[in-house]
Amino acid sequence: MPVRVTVWGENVHEREEEAVRAIYPDGMHATIAAGMAGLLGDRVQVRTATLEQDEHGLTEEVLRETDVLTWWGHHAHDQVADAVVDRVHEAVLGGMGLLVLHSGHFSKIFVRLLGTSCSLQWRNAGERELVWTVDPAHPIAAGVPQPIVIDAQEMYGEPFDIPAPDELVFISSFASGEVFRGGCCYRRGRGRLFYFSPGDQDYPVYHHPHIRRVLANAVLWAAPPPATS
Amino acid sequence: MPVRVTVWGENVHEREEEAVRAIYPDGMHATIAAGMAGLLGDRVQVRTATLEQDEHGLTEEVLRETDVLTWWGHHAHDQVADAVVDRVHEAVLGGMGLLVLHSGHFSKIFVRLLGTSCSLQWRNAGERELVWTVDPAHPIAAGVPQPIVIDAQEMYGEPFDIPAPDELVFISSFASGEVFRGGCCYRRGRGRLFYFSPGDQDYPVYHHPHIRRVLANAVLWAAPPPATS
Amino acid sequence: MPVRVTVWGENVHEREEEAVRAIYPDGMHATIAAGMAGLLGDRVQVRTATLEQDEHGLTEEVLRETDVLTWWGHHAHDQVADAVVDRVHEAVLGGMGLLVLHSGHFSKIFVRLLGTSCSLQWRNAGERELVWTVDPAHPIAAGVPQPIVIDAQEMYGEPFDIPAPDELVFISSFASGEVFRGGCCYRRGRGRLFYFSPGDQDYPVYHHPHIRRVLANAVLWAAPPPATS
Amino acid sequence: MPVRVTVWGENVHEREEEAVRAIYPDGMHATIAAGMAGLLGDRVQVRTATLEQDEHGLTEEVLRETDVLTWWGHHAHDQVADAVVDRVHEAVLGGMGLLVLHSGHFSKIFVRLLGTSCSLQWRNAGERELVWTVDPAHPIAAGVPQPIVIDAQEMYGEPFDIPAPDELVFISSFASGEVFRGGCCYRRGRGRLFYFSPGDQDYPVYHHPHIRRVLANAVLWAAPPPATS
Repeated sequence: MPVRVTVWGENVHEREEEAVRAIYPDGMHATIAAGMAGLLGDRVQVRTATLEQDEHGLTEEVLRETDVLTWWGHHAHDQVADAVVDRVHEAVLGGMGLLVLHSGHFSKIFVRLLGTSCSLQWRNAGERELVWTVDPAHPIAAGVPQPIVIDAQEMYGEPFDIPAPDELVFISSFASGEVFRGGCCYRRGRGRLFYFSPGDQDYPVYHHPHIRRVLANAVLWAAPPPATS
Repeated sequence: MPVRVTVWGENVHEREEEAVRAIYPDGMHATIAAGMAGLLGDRVQVRTATLEQDEHGLTEEVLRETDVLTWWGHHAHDQVADAVVDRVHEAVLGGMGLLVLHSGHFSKIFVRLLGTSCSLQWRNAGERELVWTVDPAHPIAAGVPQPIVIDAQEMYGEPFDIPAPDELVFISSFASGEVFRGGCCYRRGRGRLFYFSPGDQDYPVYHHPHIRRVLANAVLWAAPPPATS
Repeated sequence: MPVRVTVWGENVHEREEEAVRAIYPDGMHATIAAGMAGLLGDRVQVRTATLEQDEHGLTEEVLRETDVLTWWGHHAHDQVADAVVDRVHEAVLGGMGLLVLHSGHFSKIFVRLLGTSCSLQWRNAGERELVWTVDPAHPIAAGVPQPIVIDAQEMYGEPFDIPAPDELVFISSFASGEVFRGGCCYRRGRGRLFYFSPGDQDYPVYHHPHIRRVLANAVLWAAPPPATS
Repeated sequence: MPVRVTVWGENVHEREEEAVRAIYPDGMHATIAAGMAGLLGDRVQVRTATLEQDEHGLTEEVLRETDVLTWWGHHAHDQVADAVVDRVHEAVLGGMGLLVLHSGHFSKIFVRLLGTSCSLQWRNAGERELVWTVDPAHPIAAGVPQPIVIDAQEMYGEPFDIPAPDELVFISSFASGEVFRGGCCYRRGRGRLFYFSPGDQDYPVYHHPHIRRVLANAVLWAAPPPATS
């Protein structure tokens, strides 16, 4: 049975900014989805959903058919309807995996699940980011180099106001010296949650083969186990 | 400098049920406050606040002057105004300690801080509860016997849908065999949170000397450290 | 590829005490191994090893071909050669899974991996043990009832002097009211470690279908992931 | 009652290398001790002990009178007698605080307490180290800037083969981009353990006012609480 993934994208920057569209002509969600499908083949079934769709594309039926949801949002967090956040929240507690990406740290669903402000330091200056694995046996870190090198990224820095992660997988450093707990696992209810910080819209991060590998690994990690018969 | 404690009580059962009033004639909050003041003397300054007061007695000024807030609620969780919950949430993230008691597991503030359903199993049958210390060096467990014996209590049982505690201090067992993670520490933002399960309104639990000791210990543990000069 | 399991048994009680031999005529290790093979079929390849064998049956070659090792010892912990403990320790840090059972809490390998005294309270009085799941989504708890009922067992009680588990799966209660963190997960180096407390030699615990299910689940959980190609 | 601190130093580099002696003419232990006494005044009573002393200066009597022990070793880990390691181990499990510094990550006592290899990456190239606080409310981080800047240090990098810390306080980055979990808290038995990575013998790190502040904070954090009367 394939893991059923729904890749959710806010899809605002891509529609409004030419520079972002140049990197992600079909939207970041399309690139993220293609990366997963390309690496995992028939182990996954991937669809996408976006903010502007009815119920943001996250109807009860879609969620019922979703094993892992990925979430990228930034500019329009407050346009996400509370009823949809309630539904996603309930789905996660019921066992659906959730991958929250980059600026999704301020999404309603992430803040709801973690209970803290989820604030952090940031500076968008196209700095080199290095993603270091601190838990080499973790399945989300399988098959990536030490470190992953991202030539240009927005800097995210500490303190990151989150609960202590249940498992810390990656720590990033930036050219200017800042560090960030950028790969964090949580278990909430029956669901698994992974936050991964690389992925600003101004840089082609989701085309990066090692970032794609991390996301593919995380999908498999976050998927609920098959029911025991 | 004394630790400034505000003991918050819903104060509904005490007003509406004679049996509860017989145990707590001035309200559970008054008994809890007296226990802390009695054990900690001039190390604390204790006041109380209740639901029926203006802004539930938790004005901005009161919270600004509160180092540790304790929360007992049950029947009227949904009558607590969201604006007050927002304010308490912000205060905790800013460093105020919070003790959540018994049925407060379903309070808005607890669910907000933890992000899960906080559901549990329960049965109100006046069973004996034993409170076992699993972390004997923890300051919240100082000075209590192994186990604390409570002759009659409502049963709370697993699964308790909470994030894994940052520190697990106590596990209870009940006469019918159920177990419960009844003493759990969390750190959220700059604040410290302690959940303690004993304390149903139908039983004189907050008159129990060892329960009072736990609460006094927890006040000192949850208090923010003095500012460094 | 099947998970290669080596079930290690001290095999002293079984040889020396008729009452134990009546329960486990071929040794506890044989019963444990049969349980795993029966439940997991061709997903596992199970062999056994015992103290009295050369190098306790745990040669370098055996460990190189072992994905998960299970450990039951009690009477003869100090007869286990330090060189073999070193070898097992290194194998765990290199990625081999380890299941430590019941009185194995005082084995050299468990104490070596955890760094604490691993002491606990105990009383052998044939008490009913209830094994409660506190993490219902954990794969080790899949398919078992809430609680697992063991009619007669040795009591193990708190405080259990272990590091806080990375994941707490089960808590037991006993007829006399004691509680025990009896299902604890740790990650050490690249290896995964699961401690499971039921299983005194005086009772037929490893014939119990739900206990067998837990052990089978734990084998799959502790097995190192297949290498990424 | 003052906290009784024993600062243990290997004191080999200082005796054998002129360059180290130029930085620490009385030994690193003397500088560390002076820093604590200077910052904490009559809140501490500080003495020192070194490898070359009888029983390495850590007799039963000394340990009985020690609330917090600090440990710096590097060149001569294997010259520390196992009997003394046993004694220190037992003292920690009994409640004595332990601060392990820099190259002490490979000391017998640290490896004994943690159970893993404690290996890490390193390169001694006089690089700038930045020590970032990731848990701003932690008492060990009180009063230090974000980040602490150390002009020149040996690089320590991930993966650091340790159990996941019970509390992670600091993460360092180095000029070449590596990161390191350099401030880690553990609770083992009744004792508290803090590992702090800055402090190579080739650099004047223990003269640095913010590093001294961290060590002073850590002494207060690791001290066992006064007995409850």
